[in-house]
Amino acid sequence: MVDRKLILYISCSLDGFIAKPNEDLGFLSIVEKEGEDYGYNKFIKTIDTVIIGRRTYEWVIGQGYDFPHADKELYIITRKKQGNHSNLRFYNGDLETLVRELKSKKGQNIFCDGGSQIVNQLLNKKLFDEMIISIIPVLIGNGIKLFEKGTPEQELQLLSVKKYDSGLVQLHYKMKGK
Amino acid sequence: MVDRKLILYISCSLDGFIAKPNEDLGFLSIVEKEGEDYGYNKFIKTIDTVIIGRRTYEWVIGQGYDFPHADKELYIITRKKQGNHSNLRFYNGDLETLVRELKSKKGQNIFCDGGSQIVNQLLNKKLFDEMIISIIPVLIGNGIKLFEKGTPEQELQLLSVKKYDSGLVQLHYKMKGK
Repeated sequence: MVDRKLILYISCSLDGFIAKPNEDLGFLSIVEKEGEDYGYNKFIKTIDTVIIGRRTYEWVIGQGYDFPHADKELYIITRKKQGNHSNLRFYNGDLETLVRELKSKKGQNIFCDGGSQIVNQLLNKKLFDEMIISIIPVLIGNGIKLFEKGTPEQELQLLSVKKYDSGLVQLHYKMKGK
Repeated sequence: MVDRKLILYISCSLDGFIAKPNEDLGFLSIVEKEGEDYGYNKFIKTIDTVIIGRRTYEWVIGQGYDFPHADKELYIITRKKQGNHSNLRFYNGDLETLVRELKSKKGQNIFCDGGSQIVNQLLNKKLFDEMIISIIPVLIGNGIKLFEKGTPEQELQLLSVKKYDSGLVQLHYKMKGK
């Protein structure tokens, strides 16, 4: 039985891109709507730990934003050794070990906030328990794919589907066997 | 205004594959269920013409099946010149011309039955009016991608979402501007 779940929560175009070339997320504006957060704040209350790739982390910081999740335990996955600051830990060890350690402790769920490299490493090791994928109603044709080739076969159980007025469809799956 | 619509009706894994390597469609068995055709027969009554790639056509024949749609006008897209037989026409001309000609005639809708090459050629020329995509609850990791890289950006309008007990989700989109 899984106590703390590792959950992918991410959006992509219908053709499976999470960003256009040069990390362009402009296509997300298609579904931007005052007062509609597509369940994000509700989801974020169910997690207390965030795993994110270094490049994605630096991209967010580079946009001039404070990194969100100041009240969460934050793991930035990197190949380089780097120090820790308050709630922020740079982690250059084995992902499987990290997830096992996090799950051995009591806590809320764990949120994987991207990017594609980390998502696919976690898929390769079958470490996700659930995925919540928001499909943006657009084909973008180029950029960074959510699912790279080569990940192992994995049956899924559909937990729910939400359809929004903007055309966004949110699919919530559980990995079978988890 | 579009009178006859060109519609893509296809299924794929959540990671966007329409077949595993070697045209293996075994993953479709996950959602096979006695008496459940996921709306296929209802859809097929709305069309009178089928466009299909030669390789996909030959694959179906090679499985020992009679090709379905004997009561439809069938266009097999091929690079080679070949003859026509009864309702079956081999077509090696320009796809855009074919679609324009079909649409200039009165009739029911036109069904694109794959494969990936034809789908992506039609996407490249923005010839689809609608897409009905059935997402099978599985990641398969390798095989033939539904959406190849390089297709032009295209906003979509979500017409409907259907969720089935098997976990299949059927997304019905209209191409914006059509």
